[in-house]
Amino acid sequence: MLTAILLISCPDKKGITAQVSNFIYTNNGNIEHADQHIDSQTNTFFMRIEWSLKNFDIKKENITKEFSTLAKKFNMHYSLSFNESIQRVAIFASRNLHCLHDLLLRHAEGQLHCEIPLVISNHYTAEKIVKGFGIKFFEFPITKKNKSQAEDKTAKLLVKEKIDLIVLARYGQILTRKFLDKFPGRIINIHHSFLPAFIGEDPYGQAYRRGVKIIGATSHYVTEELDAGPIIEQDTVRINHRDTIDDLKIKGQDLEKIVLSRAVRWHLERKILVYNNKTVVFD
Amino acid sequence: MLTAILLISCPDKKGITAQVSNFIYTNNGNIEHADQHIDSQTNTFFMRIEWSLKNFDIKKENITKEFSTLAKKFNMHYSLSFNESIQRVAIFASRNLHCLHDLLLRHAEGQLHCEIPLVISNHYTAEKIVKGFGIKFFEFPITKKNKSQAEDKTAKLLVKEKIDLIVLARYGQILTRKFLDKFPGRIINIHHSFLPAFIGEDPYGQAYRRGVKIIGATSHYVTEELDAGPIIEQDTVRINHRDTIDDLKIKGQDLEKIVLSRAVRWHLERKILVYNNKTVVFD
Amino acid sequence: MLTAILLISCPDKKGITAQVSNFIYTNNGNIEHADQHIDSQTNTFFMRIEWSLKNFDIKKENITKEFSTLAKKFNMHYSLSFNESIQRVAIFASRNLHCLHDLLLRHAEGQLHCEIPLVISNHYTAEKIVKGFGIKFFEFPITKKNKSQAEDKTAKLLVKEKIDLIVLARYGQILTRKFLDKFPGRIINIHHSFLPAFIGEDPYGQAYRRGVKIIGATSHYVTEELDAGPIIEQDTVRINHRDTIDDLKIKGQDLEKIVLSRAVRWHLERKILVYNNKTVVFD
Amino acid sequence: MLTAILLISCPDKKGITAQVSNFIYTNNGNIEHADQHIDSQTNTFFMRIEWSLKNFDIKKENITKEFSTLAKKFNMHYSLSFNESIQRVAIFASRNLHCLHDLLLRHAEGQLHCEIPLVISNHYTAEKIVKGFGIKFFEFPITKKNKSQAEDKTAKLLVKEKIDLIVLARYGQILTRKFLDKFPGRIINIHHSFLPAFIGEDPYGQAYRRGVKIIGATSHYVTEELDAGPIIEQDTVRINHRDTIDDLKIKGQDLEKIVLSRAVRWHLERKILVYNNKTVVFD
Repeated sequence: MLTAILLISCPDKKGITAQVSNFIYTNNGNIEHADQHIDSQTNTFFMRIEWSLKNFDIKKENITKEFSTLAKKFNMHYSLSFNESIQRVAIFASRNLHCLHDLLLRHAEGQLHCEIPLVISNHYTAEKIVKGFGIKFFEFPITKKNKSQAEDKTAKLLVKEKIDLIVLARYGQILTRKFLDKFPGRIINIHHSFLPAFIGEDPYGQAYRRGVKIIGATSHYVTEELDAGPIIEQDTVRINHRDTIDDLKIKGQDLEKIVLSRAVRWHLERKILVYNNKTVVFD
Repeated sequence: MLTAILLISCPDKKGITAQVSNFIYTNNGNIEHADQHIDSQTNTFFMRIEWSLKNFDIKKENITKEFSTLAKKFNMHYSLSFNESIQRVAIFASRNLHCLHDLLLRHAEGQLHCEIPLVISNHYTAEKIVKGFGIKFFEFPITKKNKSQAEDKTAKLLVKEKIDLIVLARYGQILTRKFLDKFPGRIINIHHSFLPAFIGEDPYGQAYRRGVKIIGATSHYVTEELDAGPIIEQDTVRINHRDTIDDLKIKGQDLEKIVLSRAVRWHLERKILVYNNKTVVFD
Repeated sequence: MLTAILLISCPDKKGITAQVSNFIYTNNGNIEHADQHIDSQTNTFFMRIEWSLKNFDIKKENITKEFSTLAKKFNMHYSLSFNESIQRVAIFASRNLHCLHDLLLRHAEGQLHCEIPLVISNHYTAEKIVKGFGIKFFEFPITKKNKSQAEDKTAKLLVKEKIDLIVLARYGQILTRKFLDKFPGRIINIHHSFLPAFIGEDPYGQAYRRGVKIIGATSHYVTEELDAGPIIEQDTVRINHRDTIDDLKIKGQDLEKIVLSRAVRWHLERKILVYNNKTVVFD
Repeated sequence: MLTAILLISCPDKKGITAQVSNFIYTNNGNIEHADQHIDSQTNTFFMRIEWSLKNFDIKKENITKEFSTLAKKFNMHYSLSFNESIQRVAIFASRNLHCLHDLLLRHAEGQLHCEIPLVISNHYTAEKIVKGFGIKFFEFPITKKNKSQAEDKTAKLLVKEKIDLIVLARYGQILTRKFLDKFPGRIINIHHSFLPAFIGEDPYGQAYRRGVKIIGATSHYVTEELDAGPIIEQDTVRINHRDTIDDLKIKGQDLEKIVLSRAVRWHLERKILVYNNKTVVFD
């Protein structure tokens, strides 16, 4: 069934819910899901509404135009998408391949509604796995010297391949602001700690040395400040004094896979709204 | 701020959300919270909608009448309530007093928006605690012989005290169908296991003997079949082979308190819809 | 480093710990790990002790003989093994391949210290994956008619391949008592529920219909009674009313993989002692 | 049953376990619990061993002397205690009383094996609760001016009352180094975040603003650096975008109570060894 999805945020006012749902109803659409949230601290209204386009009176390509009157009236930020438009995802990986492998498997099992035309890595190690899934593999080694050049080449490739979403599956390189600015709100990273604890390198080592009793993993949108972008999902697992750093890595990997895959799935299903460096996830 | 809350369930049809929110909007109400859910297996629509009555054009006492046209049109089951109408809660306890104590403390701290005029027990042990909170205490000992009589006396007292909700805080007696029928959907119990595992007596002993690695607690509405009513909330905690049955009890008590208090809070905030012996919790 | 591992259970008596550790010390062994547990209800003593064989005065092949005096004195059940002796594991699968895939990946990443010479399935679907890992694949379709024959053939193959451990990775067939008796305490199953809730078929459907708020997975040794063997590990995850049965399956699969892999790892590392249909896991 | 408990840490060497357990066995003691751990990174050996003094050949008051030969031989740090020696605990509180109340209730229910002769607060609010439990209450208001004086007065009182352990139950004041030095390793604090995230003031506000999806609580020994002492226990709970800061506080309070009470219980049962600013908890 073909559906349209509206993600809306705007200052809260009387009548938004009524008028948005009326817009759909009076045009003969059937609402499948509707979820809203009001942040009372900032008086902001958030909504995700999905409706069937079967018998909808407005043509797909005209919905934006028809909706714009309402959008202007309420000063909305909004995005319209359709469940049938399959997003194209590029995965970036380095030497730790468990998240890459996990995403490819979930995709193969039908859990991730997207196309994955290519994987990019600064190491060759992932090549065999990636090609085994029938996916193109590009090795772009990064050095201090060639970083800017390599990023440019990468960006060109992503544009050419019409990539909608970049997933950093334990990608070991920090992306520059210049690169990030080309894909705002479209890069998801997994950090192997419970952010904001243990930002930066070797979070399992940091956790081990601090002696925490629980470790975590965090998926987030990438912004310029390292590991400080909007958090999408987190999860934690209990450890104890018997666990070595290697044990932490094994336990943590299970978290990383789950936490990253949830973030990617929610993004693909247009369930995430970002504001104030935070996320509303309409799960 | 005075608000009205509608809980709705009905067969799913085009236009419910639009027309309900329009009913509120055209009468000058401001929607504070709206949450809906469609159970696609049974094609049932569920909604919780809360709006401010400030400037609302319809008088409180007339809302039901005015809404009835819409309700009929969509064959709705619905209930209307107002956040200012404070529910009256009776707690039933026996010898294990941690849940009782916890509820009284949360109430004193303002976490539970209700009145607790009385506590009923088949043992005198709770008396001191209860009276310390300035609450009436009734000891109704139960024997096989006097059970029916005692329940009648209890029911009369509850009616006289205009009790809206009965909370069984580790109450040790099984209530008869006759009693239950007088308070349908208005009795919440805590069972000290992860239901449907370990129904009935001594669930910690059962869990210990089965050798499970995790224990749980379950709050649910009471129905005639023992421990089989609609589940409201559950939580679990990890145990290990070193834990004795007494350790299970201590770990479990912490769960019981949390799981019961969440259920009571959600019920008081009208966040729970029951259907098909299950609950939708609009948390 | 070569180590020996003793798993001991016996009636609790004064001096067991002292005399066992003395046996190792006076023969010039260095204890690497020692863990003990006393079940005070049954007065049973459990111990796992691992020591370095570097400079140990007794030859590997003579340790059992030398230890037997002590073992007799305390009426011990015990098993001696060596970390260098790699166990051989056969995985049984059917159509749901996530657990199989997960185990093969963990094995490839070095998380599971064993050999996996073969995978057996009653469906051909796993063939490609299995062979991709360079592992032998056997398809033994099962019908009511051929079940006994197929099991005999399977058992012969397992004996021929010197299989130490059988892992049922969402294997869809129930094994007969005759088969089970050939591999006592050496078959691990994953059940996709929080046992003892939802024994038998379609546990996710059962969970959905009962309306639980948390689902689980359980790994256990297989015994004749269905889903009633000693539990090795369990874990749980929160669900809500928006989750369909398919969502439960996806969430549950992540649990199944983790819970089964932990059980297999602990078994391979000789960390599990079984008694009274329960397990002591020296994690 | 009267038992002795030894907590040992020392450089790892061959024979420690054997000789310690032999010391107990040859003197006719029965080991009830023994747990050991080797930190392979620092090559440090840790042990907790508890044995019955019934029929033990060495008198209680002579055990330390008799054990000292062994202790010297292995360069042990060790502490000997007896389960019958009841520790005396002082609780410090301020305006948030849920942890105080929880500890007093657990103590009354027999979960905490200690005496609580007094509660100290910089606010009068706790007075009624504390006295209701028959415990002495001291209000020592703190200002910038009188802080040093107030701490001195407090320290004197604690010494006079022979206090073994100080529990900061959401105590709002930062203790000075001078005070801390008088009670090294004997002050337990609860911090209402998942440390090391959100150190310092208003952790729930910090968590809310950062947009985390999980919050936590941490109990730890107090050292001079704020919220940086050895972590004893942590736990976490899931939140979502609908939760206000007040909701975070309510959810967090449940964690705080559990996490603090576990730490206090383990300390009282001599289950905690501190090294390198971390803890080994022999749970």
